[in-house]
Amino acid sequence: MPRPQQFDRKQVLQQALKVFWHQGYEATSMTDLMRATGLSKSSFYNTFASKHECLLEAFDSYRADRLRDMDRVLAGDNAKESIATFFRMIVSDAKAPEFINGCMSINQAVELAPHDEAIATRVDEDFQKIEDALAEAIERGQRAGSIATRRDARNIAQLMVVAFPGFQVLVRAGSPQTRLNHALDELLAILD
Amino acid sequence: MPRPQQFDRKQVLQQALKVFWHQGYEATSMTDLMRATGLSKSSFYNTFASKHECLLEAFDSYRADRLRDMDRVLAGDNAKESIATFFRMIVSDAKAPEFINGCMSINQAVELAPHDEAIATRVDEDFQKIEDALAEAIERGQRAGSIATRRDARNIAQLMVVAFPGFQVLVRAGSPQTRLNHALDELLAILD
Repeated sequence: MPRPQQFDRKQVLQQALKVFWHQGYEATSMTDLMRATGLSKSSFYNTFASKHECLLEAFDSYRADRLRDMDRVLAGDNAKESIATFFRMIVSDAKAPEFINGCMSINQAVELAPHDEAIATRVDEDFQKIEDALAEAIERGQRAGSIATRRDARNIAQLMVVAFPGFQVLVRAGSPQTRLNHALDELLAILD
Repeated sequence: MPRPQQFDRKQVLQQALKVFWHQGYEATSMTDLMRATGLSKSSFYNTFASKHECLLEAFDSYRADRLRDMDRVLAGDNAKESIATFFRMIVSDAKAPEFINGCMSINQAVELAPHDEAIATRVDEDFQKIEDALAEAIERGQRAGSIATRRDARNIAQLMVVAFPGFQVLVRAGSPQTRLNHALDELLAILD
């Protein structure tokens, strides 16, 4: 008797996410996805329409989690400390076993964004959200006094958005901790 | 009569480089490499021993070209202007058709460095060379007067090394030009 096709969509997405994240999109085959999710080919296509749709849904769930993490950290009372914590988190997360495959957004930016419109739109949206959240935090700190610089908050936020994937690439490439620490000190010194 | 196996090694490497650069290492098959280089399987293996050896040799020739570009630009009379030019070049190069596939070093850092020791060593060596060259240029500018800040040249160089892949990821993801310009202005303002 065939097993009835019952499954938890969220769990299936998490399993698909791991495969895409680990192998990249192009190198992931339908066989890999079926093995990871336990779905038959027909169930998979009934659920996601295509491999690409599955990637987008898995990526969206990953993005939502990461943006929630960011908002939580940046909401701290002391804006300057919150921004420091945000960047320290990027560096330590990038070293965590969970993120052994790097930040999925950065991987997507490198692998797919240049020739995949749906991915490019998402990656760009995320960079914009990070910029907005950092600009808002810097302005808050300038008003409250934790951030002394009178330089334009939006411009500083734009440099910080550049540093964001920069730190992740360097961690992924195994850069020494002293380089990461000094770079972070210099970045935060802009707020003084 | 079979065509004699004669070929220009440098040209073959350039053709292999294009395939690795465009597709990434894992997604490149021996068939792709044979098609791109025009070599038979046996010639290929006589020449490079393995697909991985071919990648390393192609990557080394790419790295040598890029480091030469960097040294040429940073050798300018006015150190501050040279550093500005170096970063403007990264942004404009990242948009050039030749670099449509992104900087190969950054792609390798993301795709292979985490689990390929030979690649990780090379990527790390390059980041160190960029840091050294920038630190040297900043010190030169501090002595000559084009760079006013008394902050530590090495630490600033370390932040600049973070910004280096950061700019490339953002360009690759299609970030708006204003973000890139403002970020670059903020980065260079550290030298004032």
